[in-house]
Amino acid sequence: MKVKYELLKKEKNTMGRNGILHTNHGSFKTPMFMPVGTLANVKTLTPEELYEMNSGIILSNTYHLWLRPGADIVNKAGGLHKFMNYKGPILTDSGGFQVFSLAKRKDITEEGVKFKSHIDGSDLFLTPEKSIEVQNKLDSDIAMSFDECIGYPADYEYAKMSTERTLRWAKRGKDVHNNENQSLFGIVQGGEYEDLRKFSALETSKLGFDGYSIGGTSVGEGKDVMYKMIEYATPYLPEDKVRYLMGVGDPIDIIEGVIRGIDIFDCVLPTRLARHGNAFTHNGKINLRNSKFKEDFTSVEHNCDCYTCKNYTKAYIRHLLASNEILAGRLLSIHNIRFLIKLTEDLREAIDNDNLLEYRDTFIKNYQKN
Amino acid sequence: MKVKYELLKKEKNTMGRNGILHTNHGSFKTPMFMPVGTLANVKTLTPEELYEMNSGIILSNTYHLWLRPGADIVNKAGGLHKFMNYKGPILTDSGGFQVFSLAKRKDITEEGVKFKSHIDGSDLFLTPEKSIEVQNKLDSDIAMSFDECIGYPADYEYAKMSTERTLRWAKRGKDVHNNENQSLFGIVQGGEYEDLRKFSALETSKLGFDGYSIGGTSVGEGKDVMYKMIEYATPYLPEDKVRYLMGVGDPIDIIEGVIRGIDIFDCVLPTRLARHGNAFTHNGKINLRNSKFKEDFTSVEHNCDCYTCKNYTKAYIRHLLASNEILAGRLLSIHNIRFLIKLTEDLREAIDNDNLLEYRDTFIKNYQKN
Repeated sequence: MKVKYELLKKEKNTMGRNGILHTNHGSFKTPMFMPVGTLANVKTLTPEELYEMNSGIILSNTYHLWLRPGADIVNKAGGLHKFMNYKGPILTDSGGFQVFSLAKRKDITEEGVKFKSHIDGSDLFLTPEKSIEVQNKLDSDIAMSFDECIGYPADYEYAKMSTERTLRWAKRGKDVHNNENQSLFGIVQGGEYEDLRKFSALETSKLGFDGYSIGGTSVGEGKDVMYKMIEYATPYLPEDKVRYLMGVGDPIDIIEGVIRGIDIFDCVLPTRLARHGNAFTHNGKINLRNSKFKEDFTSVEHNCDCYTCKNYTKAYIRHLLASNEILAGRLLSIHNIRFLIKLTEDLREAIDNDNLLEYRDTFIKNYQKN
Repeated sequence: MKVKYELLKKEKNTMGRNGILHTNHGSFKTPMFMPVGTLANVKTLTPEELYEMNSGIILSNTYHLWLRPGADIVNKAGGLHKFMNYKGPILTDSGGFQVFSLAKRKDITEEGVKFKSHIDGSDLFLTPEKSIEVQNKLDSDIAMSFDECIGYPADYEYAKMSTERTLRWAKRGKDVHNNENQSLFGIVQGGEYEDLRKFSALETSKLGFDGYSIGGTSVGEGKDVMYKMIEYATPYLPEDKVRYLMGVGDPIDIIEGVIRGIDIFDCVLPTRLARHGNAFTHNGKINLRNSKFKEDFTSVEHNCDCYTCKNYTKAYIRHLLASNEILAGRLLSIHNIRFLIKLTEDLREAIDNDNLLEYRDTFIKNYQKN
């Protein structure tokens, strides 16, 4: 079965919307934040911990799994769900963003991308067909089309050429995709240019994918430009398909994305911040290494319903961080991921109540207080 | 309330015995393996994971907590149980072993031990009184007397002098101990010498502690000598008090210890091995980094009831190890600790059936097969 997006409610004042995405591994409500399990695990966490946070879907990285342990081993294990013991929906990206962010040197042609492995420097060649072949073997619920992630700022002519090529790559990937139980999403590119984003959204939609994402964001473009990139595209995407904004996990960006019609977000931010001792709170990020928390016997955030806040104090987590204990990163990962998932739950409620803009203004006021 | 040891059954052919230790934080059956939570956490694990493994009691290190975060902070948190969110019994050691194993230079006098911090090299002075004062503040269920851990081999005259001093230290500690809810255990020293071990066991017993441990083991003396150190002491310890062998966690040593009348063991071995990719099995230790496990889609050990074996394959854990994912150490810590706790459960059954020696022989035959 392919995923099916069910639209539940459109907010009155914005493009915000509530829905449900039905998959072969269960349904989940949108808007939703998707934790990242790069190497077939969300760093330090078990699936049970993710279920407990109401995680609807997780992401895993095709590029990383292609290199380690290799798609064939995951396939022999019975696919990614069995390999990593995750019973909920899984989305795999296409490798396009990793080629952009990790590869030291790359040579992009019509055929695909030649680049060096970030692990051992060996020669790699990723094409739209190869990316889909690998994802077919991984057997995720949702595969992403292989695209070129354009940097920022981008020359208009290059952005145009690349966006058109990404479209051809999307078609090539779609043509070879052959996994009846896996959905395939298209990716909108177009850099920072309104006409290219519109063109990409319309033409990608014409190819007919099971869902659509907006790529080429979180590449250093700044918030205002990112919000525009979304605005340029979402009006031209079909209303009956789910929309996913790639690589975005800052709380304010999630809110602004939802306002502009986005349903799903992913980002390594909550786990990466956690490993460095940072925690999201509604009054902004705090760093638990700070000595002012030495004797603070309250939870990371008052009223937070996560496992960490229900059981541990800032003083304890600070002690673990000061002692380089791994448990600190684990506890803060739980808090930070739950924070973003809870944020999407609150956004759903705001959509139901048609007060999304009010919710945003209050959130930002508190978040930027410190 | 002080801990109370209830003797349930003596094995016919050995000194092995089954019992229950009653504490203020619940009762647990002995023999029992005690996981080590050096810095107020069993590395990478939560209390819930320890409860699920049937962990009866955990150990935490006075020396480490004294330095970080400091006894006063733990005390202000409401004691160690509240600080680390552990609801079961906790034993704290005295710091004696850490002075022996971690301190670069040390100066031992009748008063106590002057040494340098292993963290920042600053001057520290630990005395029997100070150790007890710190443990009183930590508010563990069981405090250990401050002792000198004699190395191996030891000069007889030195061992004699040190053992007599440890006895005086035990008395000094007992005199200042003032925590009605905390039990205090004595430690038998005496190096490798039969008469000194006997002397230490008898004289320490005369002081009247709530339980007794055998120290000065696991200092490079080899298995045969260690087993003798136990044999020299246990016959002279009171039968109605629990007996704890310090720092021993090799499966065969646990079995040999139980045969010689030991009730409780502790060791960092299961968690340390786990972080290096090693797993206990009944057919000996295996290293999951080995490439032969690349496509091994079976659990670490067949029929093991731990969370890891019920949910993950060797191929997956090998992948996590190869990718330096922290989850690997966490999953193997769960397996290894559960392996040792399950071993003590099996030993209890063997004691009930009066076939402890047979159990040992079969275990060793399998364990040393590879």
